[in-house]
Amino acid sequence: MFVYNAWYMGAWADEIKPQGLLGRVLLDLPVVFYRGEDGKAFALEDRCCHRALPLSHGCVIGDQLQCGYHGLVYDNKGACVKVPGQDRVPAQAKVRSYPVVEQDAMLWIWMGDPALADASLIVRHPWHSDPDWTWVKDRYSIKANYQLITDNLMDLTHVGYVHQRTIGGTPQAHSDADTKTTRSETGVKVTRWMMDSVPPPSYVAAFKFNTPTVDRWMEIDFFPPAAVRIHTGAKDTGTGAREGNRMGGLAFMGLNMQTPETEKTTHYFWSGARTYSVDEPDVRAKLLTSLPVTFAEDKVVVEAQQESIDREGGAPLVMIASDAGLVHARRLVATLLEEEARAREVAGIKPVIPIRPVHDAMQKQEHAS
Amino acid sequence: MFVYNAWYMGAWADEIKPQGLLGRVLLDLPVVFYRGEDGKAFALEDRCCHRALPLSHGCVIGDQLQCGYHGLVYDNKGACVKVPGQDRVPAQAKVRSYPVVEQDAMLWIWMGDPALADASLIVRHPWHSDPDWTWVKDRYSIKANYQLITDNLMDLTHVGYVHQRTIGGTPQAHSDADTKTTRSETGVKVTRWMMDSVPPPSYVAAFKFNTPTVDRWMEIDFFPPAAVRIHTGAKDTGTGAREGNRMGGLAFMGLNMQTPETEKTTHYFWSGARTYSVDEPDVRAKLLTSLPVTFAEDKVVVEAQQESIDREGGAPLVMIASDAGLVHARRLVATLLEEEARAREVAGIKPVIPIRPVHDAMQKQEHAS
Amino acid sequence: MFVYNAWYMGAWADEIKPQGLLGRVLLDLPVVFYRGEDGKAFALEDRCCHRALPLSHGCVIGDQLQCGYHGLVYDNKGACVKVPGQDRVPAQAKVRSYPVVEQDAMLWIWMGDPALADASLIVRHPWHSDPDWTWVKDRYSIKANYQLITDNLMDLTHVGYVHQRTIGGTPQAHSDADTKTTRSETGVKVTRWMMDSVPPPSYVAAFKFNTPTVDRWMEIDFFPPAAVRIHTGAKDTGTGAREGNRMGGLAFMGLNMQTPETEKTTHYFWSGARTYSVDEPDVRAKLLTSLPVTFAEDKVVVEAQQESIDREGGAPLVMIASDAGLVHARRLVATLLEEEARAREVAGIKPVIPIRPVHDAMQKQEHAS
Repeated sequence: MFVYNAWYMGAWADEIKPQGLLGRVLLDLPVVFYRGEDGKAFALEDRCCHRALPLSHGCVIGDQLQCGYHGLVYDNKGACVKVPGQDRVPAQAKVRSYPVVEQDAMLWIWMGDPALADASLIVRHPWHSDPDWTWVKDRYSIKANYQLITDNLMDLTHVGYVHQRTIGGTPQAHSDADTKTTRSETGVKVTRWMMDSVPPPSYVAAFKFNTPTVDRWMEIDFFPPAAVRIHTGAKDTGTGAREGNRMGGLAFMGLNMQTPETEKTTHYFWSGARTYSVDEPDVRAKLLTSLPVTFAEDKVVVEAQQESIDREGGAPLVMIASDAGLVHARRLVATLLEEEARAREVAGIKPVIPIRPVHDAMQKQEHAS
Repeated sequence: MFVYNAWYMGAWADEIKPQGLLGRVLLDLPVVFYRGEDGKAFALEDRCCHRALPLSHGCVIGDQLQCGYHGLVYDNKGACVKVPGQDRVPAQAKVRSYPVVEQDAMLWIWMGDPALADASLIVRHPWHSDPDWTWVKDRYSIKANYQLITDNLMDLTHVGYVHQRTIGGTPQAHSDADTKTTRSETGVKVTRWMMDSVPPPSYVAAFKFNTPTVDRWMEIDFFPPAAVRIHTGAKDTGTGAREGNRMGGLAFMGLNMQTPETEKTTHYFWSGARTYSVDEPDVRAKLLTSLPVTFAEDKVVVEAQQESIDREGGAPLVMIASDAGLVHARRLVATLLEEEARAREVAGIKPVIPIRPVHDAMQKQEHAS
Repeated sequence: MFVYNAWYMGAWADEIKPQGLLGRVLLDLPVVFYRGEDGKAFALEDRCCHRALPLSHGCVIGDQLQCGYHGLVYDNKGACVKVPGQDRVPAQAKVRSYPVVEQDAMLWIWMGDPALADASLIVRHPWHSDPDWTWVKDRYSIKANYQLITDNLMDLTHVGYVHQRTIGGTPQAHSDADTKTTRSETGVKVTRWMMDSVPPPSYVAAFKFNTPTVDRWMEIDFFPPAAVRIHTGAKDTGTGAREGNRMGGLAFMGLNMQTPETEKTTHYFWSGARTYSVDEPDVRAKLLTSLPVTFAEDKVVVEAQQESIDREGGAPLVMIASDAGLVHARRLVATLLEEEARAREVAGIKPVIPIRPVHDAMQKQEHAS
């Protein structure tokens, strides 16, 4: 079960080249992204209505997409506009099209009812285009349900254990942080403060503090159904960071988008922006080497969880205090799922993909040309 | 669902060496082919009736097959004739045997009721032994239902798109061909003529035409349930090719046999015979290098279709004009399936393989020695 | 279905280093073995009760195990004794613990009702610590149900066929052996005698006999549910071996423990002890090279059987005389399964692992901190 009426990150903007295309499964549905002649990005159902070949096996022609099997051509709304060898295009020859918004270097897609696709609902990430910041990014394929990744991010006490060989530091320091979990207007916010604390070695290496101790913060923002922004940083002790003045310190802005591929696999997009060494390619190169090691540690954990869940089904789990963030996040997603199910029921709408016997459909297709 | 009362190509004749054996799954049933002492080929159920080990793990002894686990020996009718360590052979100790016919360098097998196995029903392919022709061949494992391969072959307009980097040529030329689809006595025939047309580069390279344009033909014959013969060629324009005089031109004779392994995997046997450069080993070597590239293009397509179908079940498909051949082919197979199901019902015959709980059967087997 | 109230070999003792741990799936349940500070071995459910991460991703601290995700600590009874970041440990925070006995260089585990775990029921193997004997050992992962391995061992007539290229010898000699199958006090015993027979080359190479022929024996003992001991050897003809005097001959003592991992995969532990060349490292090295080849031959067979069974379900099998041993062994296991099912029913005990919808449980977990 997925929330369909929501914006998901579908790709990094630069994954789709000019006149290029990319096939990707999102929310168990095949999608093909492509860029038309003016560079605008579109997303269609990645399955030709003729013989079901993914359209991503075809090619872009102007603003249109041509199937790579028998040459049917679709416009950017998904309507078939040409069938080679015949004059008439069958009325039912079309594929689904999905609203796409390119913003902050990302392509966002709306998999549900297009009428509800309000672009203002998309989580913004201005740090991708702020000249005071610089950033690195990637995408990983994770063999786990997307919510296990959200869980991971909403409870950062895991850092001391999972990442003890990389960014970990002292577990105790993370457990002792002054933590507050609140419902924000759009989601859930977990705020953690480590006031007057010894900065970790990685901070000291990256930035010159003027005081031996610092005031450190971690702000975790969950935007349902599948995005988590993590703002971390530190400033000289007693210079007002907690009161709101974060200028003049060290800051990271992490964005994590765990877009479901299937119920058990996830496209994990992430970016890390920073305010220090903005123009130093060496720092960038080092981050692109070290960050994947840390993400790999999380990948091992969530994939092992998924295997464990697959084996033991719904055996009971016990909650602890640090779960507050993820519990609120899961409740938000559960509420969205329920609302969507209810709305579908009221409107008498069937699930997105009707399932019928396969070869039967191949056999019984109507001659429509 | 498969048509069982039909001849399928089970192997190339030279795949089974003298006194050799070969295990292969056909129509979801395990089969072992072997050659007896005079070279005759046999086919038995590839599963010892004692402890279910495939007999293809054993060895050929004269005209008999010995299991590689505890040495039970079967004759070429599938009757167990020896059980080491005891004098009596249990009456029920036997495996199924399948009628096999070796013809035109192929081994044909009948998986259904042996009483109906009429060898005269086997599609002939004399080009495999005609001295004016020479041929190359192979077998591919395809991860797709066999009918997707039939579909592919029955609509050659795909050549301009799928094979644009190999044998494609101009898509338009293929779409504009004068095409006729008819039911033949034994199946479906699609005939395509490109009269007075510029010959493709590969034709010009292979053969010296006397006229700048040629009359080209493609004759596609479907023999249900799973064979397609494709006769293609060209002759000097206006020299009577369409009226029936094909002598003196360039001709290819392709045979495609897509024998089901399972519902989702297929043994794709093919051969390509030609009338030109019959005695030139260089041409042969070049074909053996280039043809697999073209077949690999089809493999990519049908396997992507299968994945698409697996994901979206029986979502509707739209038919176009060029589907005529494959629609007729699928209808023929559907009719055979229905007839077979009805005949089984009338006769009160159960499906080929009864399914019972596994370990139960291992436990409850009767002591029969 | 597995017999839970029984001792299974879970690991070789030396697989768990001091303060080390090992995750392993046994009987479809995740288990983590670890050694505490005094070297004692423990076994817990390999799944943290908090977020289901296998505890084998964590580390040993003294006699306790710490989860590698958020640092929960468990004592060796499976009780959670520490939750970082909070004072109180939720009462329901615990995992299953399993009785473990270290004996004869093996770790034995009881997966069923701990109250019934009587260590005196464990099959002993004193040859692992007898100075007159020396031994080699290993563990293989087999893709087959464990009972197919038991079957293999209970009918040694397979040696002449499966192992003809290694330890086989003449199939006829094995079939002609004087074989007797009896129920022993604890299981099934198959005894085979080859009196006054020519010793196989491997025997002659390993030992100096004083007579040209020898009296050979094979004693196969099945200890349900999943252990088979095979005592083989030979002595000078007529020196009383069959009457009980086995001293002064050549003897091997093989132990085979086929512990189920899942219904279709098995941990196959084996050891081979011998009385000859006890102090010769060359003989040991040679055995460690040659034995895996022989075991690999068995692996091929049982895995092919499993595939065959998976394909054809419970198609009938035919029994032969040499099956007597395995039939008795399977009956014993079937009886244990039935008794256990009945006892559970009488006591109103539910199956070991309750299955509930996965994400549901992740969602509905109670806040207990």
